[in-house]
Amino acid sequence: RGNVSGLVRRLNMSDGISCRELDWTSPSGGKFHFDIRRMASFSERSLFVIDYRVTSEDYEGPAEFLSLHKGVVHNYSNPHDPRMAAESGEHILPKEGHVSGGTSVLISRTASTGLEVASAVTCEVYVNGKKAGPWICEYDEEAHEARTRIAADLKPGCEIRIVKYCIFTDSRRSDDCGAEAGQKMNLVLQNGVDSYYQAQRQFLDQFWNSAKLQIDGDEDLNRAVSFNMYALLQSACPDGTASIAAKGLSGEGYEGHYFWDTEMFMLPFFILTAPQEAKNLLSYRYRTLPQARENARLLGHKRGALYPWRTITGRECSGYYPSGSAAYHINGDIAYAVISYYLATGDLSFMEKEGYEILLETARIWTDMGNWYQGSFRILCVTGPDEYTCMVNNNYFTNCAAKYNLEWTVKMADILRHTQGWKDLAARLAITDDELAGMKRAADGMYLPYDEEWGINPQDDSFLQKPVWNLPDTPASDFPLLLHYHPLHLYRYQVCKQADTVLAHVLFPQYQDEETMRKSFLYYEKITTHDSSLSTCVFSIKASELGMRDKAVWYMGDSAKMDLLNTHHNSKDGIHAANMGGSYMAIINGIALLRIHEGYVSLSPWIPEQWHGYCFRFLFHDSLFEVTVKQEESELRMLSGQPVMVQFYDHKEQMKEGNLLKHTCG
Amino acid sequence: RGNVSGLVRRLNMSDGISCRELDWTSPSGGKFHFDIRRMASFSERSLFVIDYRVTSEDYEGPAEFLSLHKGVVHNYSNPHDPRMAAESGEHILPKEGHVSGGTSVLISRTASTGLEVASAVTCEVYVNGKKAGPWICEYDEEAHEARTRIAADLKPGCEIRIVKYCIFTDSRRSDDCGAEAGQKMNLVLQNGVDSYYQAQRQFLDQFWNSAKLQIDGDEDLNRAVSFNMYALLQSACPDGTASIAAKGLSGEGYEGHYFWDTEMFMLPFFILTAPQEAKNLLSYRYRTLPQARENARLLGHKRGALYPWRTITGRECSGYYPSGSAAYHINGDIAYAVISYYLATGDLSFMEKEGYEILLETARIWTDMGNWYQGSFRILCVTGPDEYTCMVNNNYFTNCAAKYNLEWTVKMADILRHTQGWKDLAARLAITDDELAGMKRAADGMYLPYDEEWGINPQDDSFLQKPVWNLPDTPASDFPLLLHYHPLHLYRYQVCKQADTVLAHVLFPQYQDEETMRKSFLYYEKITTHDSSLSTCVFSIKASELGMRDKAVWYMGDSAKMDLLNTHHNSKDGIHAANMGGSYMAIINGIALLRIHEGYVSLSPWIPEQWHGYCFRFLFHDSLFEVTVKQEESELRMLSGQPVMVQFYDHKEQMKEGNLLKHTCG
Repeated sequence: RGNVSGLVRRLNMSDGISCRELDWTSPSGGKFHFDIRRMASFSERSLFVIDYRVTSEDYEGPAEFLSLHKGVVHNYSNPHDPRMAAESGEHILPKEGHVSGGTSVLISRTASTGLEVASAVTCEVYVNGKKAGPWICEYDEEAHEARTRIAADLKPGCEIRIVKYCIFTDSRRSDDCGAEAGQKMNLVLQNGVDSYYQAQRQFLDQFWNSAKLQIDGDEDLNRAVSFNMYALLQSACPDGTASIAAKGLSGEGYEGHYFWDTEMFMLPFFILTAPQEAKNLLSYRYRTLPQARENARLLGHKRGALYPWRTITGRECSGYYPSGSAAYHINGDIAYAVISYYLATGDLSFMEKEGYEILLETARIWTDMGNWYQGSFRILCVTGPDEYTCMVNNNYFTNCAAKYNLEWTVKMADILRHTQGWKDLAARLAITDDELAGMKRAADGMYLPYDEEWGINPQDDSFLQKPVWNLPDTPASDFPLLLHYHPLHLYRYQVCKQADTVLAHVLFPQYQDEETMRKSFLYYEKITTHDSSLSTCVFSIKASELGMRDKAVWYMGDSAKMDLLNTHHNSKDGIHAANMGGSYMAIINGIALLRIHEGYVSLSPWIPEQWHGYCFRFLFHDSLFEVTVKQEESELRMLSGQPVMVQFYDHKEQMKEGNLLKHTCG
Repeated sequence: RGNVSGLVRRLNMSDGISCRELDWTSPSGGKFHFDIRRMASFSERSLFVIDYRVTSEDYEGPAEFLSLHKGVVHNYSNPHDPRMAAESGEHILPKEGHVSGGTSVLISRTASTGLEVASAVTCEVYVNGKKAGPWICEYDEEAHEARTRIAADLKPGCEIRIVKYCIFTDSRRSDDCGAEAGQKMNLVLQNGVDSYYQAQRQFLDQFWNSAKLQIDGDEDLNRAVSFNMYALLQSACPDGTASIAAKGLSGEGYEGHYFWDTEMFMLPFFILTAPQEAKNLLSYRYRTLPQARENARLLGHKRGALYPWRTITGRECSGYYPSGSAAYHINGDIAYAVISYYLATGDLSFMEKEGYEILLETARIWTDMGNWYQGSFRILCVTGPDEYTCMVNNNYFTNCAAKYNLEWTVKMADILRHTQGWKDLAARLAITDDELAGMKRAADGMYLPYDEEWGINPQDDSFLQKPVWNLPDTPASDFPLLLHYHPLHLYRYQVCKQADTVLAHVLFPQYQDEETMRKSFLYYEKITTHDSSLSTCVFSIKASELGMRDKAVWYMGDSAKMDLLNTHHNSKDGIHAANMGGSYMAIINGIALLRIHEGYVSLSPWIPEQWHGYCFRFLFHDSLFEVTVKQEESELRMLSGQPVMVQFYDHKEQMKEGNLLKHTCG
């Protein structure tokens, strides 16, 4: 009640703090100023702080503040939107709660998997800068809720500051998450909030030092891109126990599940700017290999691991296998990410410890499921990236991803063969030369569909036999098609939800000549609805590669601004994390044409007419680079690190710290 | 409690009564004889009677009988068997109950569709043949149960007879099923049970007169076949409001749903023996055309009707569309059944009133969904009869069924064009010559896959590209495969749950030369598991056609005995109604090679070595025939009816009442 005015919300991405300021007039006419800062700590991931400062402008008298700590959570649901949870319900059930010394600890557990989450809350109160208290905190068992009542006598100019420390722990990281939450709270209270504000700033200084991306000439875009990078950084889990949900930690869309989105659309950003985070994300996949092996057995594979389509704990959470478990390309996506990380960092130690096992186990699925027919190796009955086509034979993307996965499993064995740990690794994983030779044969013999008549790669064996969906005459209200047509109807047409073959041409250009890729691009462009937010960034990158610069800019469009400006009106369900990564890729891999190769990195940046210039940094093999592009010329400078091989436009050389390459745009 | 001895159970298929006789010694030593007869009346379908006769052998003293009338039903469920209901629960909820004049009426309603069912019960009691009573009947609202307590003083030799009349009505057939149940009960009580016993006998005399089938030389088989025919007759609904569930009315397997089983595997029996019942079954499909049209719209079809894969009220009840809604062949199956009925009966009036609308509306789906590609008409993304292969392009069976459906829609229009009602029909259904011409083009241009290399019809476009499942090395415990392998795994192999292309060759031999059918038979034989009970009868018929008599006998096997002898140990879940019809077909269409053609019927019966002889009757255009086959010779006699054209072996002639054709076996 009362009246709010002058509300300002700010996100400070250098300090890592979000602020709300507002003026409030109480129902009885008292005027107050609120300054609220919130921080999810990067240095202590369990810590979330809300720092309230309330100043009385003209009020004199008693005031009471009620701080709540709630343990009951209701999920948002919408049975009419397949992108949301279909069933409402409490998935987190109260377990226990207690209060000691002003700190409340609530423990809940998930309804079906029995995971536990604990939260601890302590309020520190300062009146005009002077610590006040203690305050009575009570736990209400029935409501699974703790309440702290804070009372003060106010005068004009008097400031009450309440620092609400919140600690979150869980049973995946700790055997007794309740006790852990209490201990962490003690430590945090000892250190005090200011030390965490400092650590936050330091962490972000380091991040932006390697992640800098500045666009001149479109301030909205510039700000949106920074916001996206910041949101991705916030979403990443630093200890390998989790991946990044489709909505990060910001909303309940897709029920918090992890998809291929992470490896295909977010990891490229981390690989170039914060490789340690990339490694953590891959470690999550390594840790869930046992569940992926189980999943493979469920699906009838005698060897190997098949990653789930959507998951949290590593088990398949999709109840709809035609576009869930059938999306075998998830294995190729994860393998591709492992190889990308290796190529960008040269981190052989990771490959020895975790990466190779992922490569090998994912590759084994292809040899187990594929079959030789008419002299080539085929992969039947899978669903590719495009979900408007399901359970097809020889999906071009899947076959490419499988080929690459198999090739690198063999190649990486040759690299690791000379390391100390190989013998143990080979023994533990029962790797034989025969098996590797079989993988090489499958990779070499992989069938990649090609259509003579159109000169393109068909999305799968039967794709081009289907009638083309009449997109121009489909009313705007029918999109996204998945909400208006039965899957069986969609499956009978040439119509794509998202980039599929075009994505294969972005990731695996080495498997096709440019003419085929150009024709394919133009073909699929006409039948793709981009009903998935993972699509236009891919078309943008390929357009740039093919020299179609107008299209590259057109496809990039405003997608980077989607969440900051809520252009799709559904940011309430959470950020579009993959789109954030995708728009980063559209700039760096698209417009700047940055590519990681074996042993070197290449760039041929150009600049859209609308921009004055842009500048970005990236890491390659731990060496830090800065690229500056203007309409007339562009520069590549190596800021720090060991010498590495670089190709800048057509010029290839080994660069050293401080070296500068210049290129004049024609 | 107490002791039971001398239990005998009898099913009298001439009287239509099932009996149990037993001797019972009570815990206190009294001896009693029980004679219990039960009858589900054919003449009054709402009536079920239990007729108890209890005779005291040596007991003297008081006795009490408690007659219960329960309105609460629990369904049987087993979440581990996809053939059973997955969820337990009360699907029928109490609505109301009342008692008046010794009759209790309970009304319940189904939980989600809100259908109502009412049951009325009255007990008539006779002591030594003398009517006794009245008895107090009480309704317990909480238990939704009525109880009648019957007391008597017994002496040795004294007989108590309790005739429990039960009436069942429902809201699909009556606006007020509770009142209807009461009225029917009054009528039935007036008529008395004996008149229904008589009517039952008359009904069955008439049925067996046209349905006679006698096999000499295998008494078990002979009895089992009669049992099957009787069970089918019992399952059929005489008023067109229902079809026959997969388990008839005898069990809860498949949740009481109707499938293609009725049209493909049961209707042929009714067409030849009780055409009125066949017509009633087809009328059920006619009545549910509105729901089939709705279903078609749901699946994106602008015109036509798509019948549901499993249903009761006409709506799709399958929650798994890859082998549910995708089984478009259901449309062709129903159309085939309509045409078969017409060919066997010449019932043009049915075609005008109901049949043609089914033909047309089912055919419209094919033109709506099919597409022209490389000069032929294709049907994409459907599931054929074989459920180990899903969502494929140009399933041979489906394309044949569609072709036949389209052909007959055009041909029947030409026949009906000369009838009085055509103009109205054509206007009501918006039939144009253009549309019919389009159907003819689609039928003529229908793509029927053929493989040059093998000389067979592939089950679908990509079937032969898949590796062959290693059936010989699959352990017996892995069958049925569907319970042990993920669908995606099964879909990647050449392995069939049941006859698919072979069924097409049985139904549509005119679309293929014999050599292709022979090679196909031998090919599919090797990869078919017959995990479905709808499979071996089809192989048996085709084997007979191809002159492989040993195989015909082998495939027929003991399947006719499945339910009477409970050879599959699951008759508790209900009869295998389609198998019952299938084994009839294996004898009549298989061994006797009976075929219905346009304008005539043909037979070329042979006899398995193991049999002494067999004899059966059938109707063709209302004329009754009897076929007698012995090892040396066979006879065809026309018992009654108008002259019709008949082909007996190679001899074709118009037969008249009393005519006899003889054939000496070579």
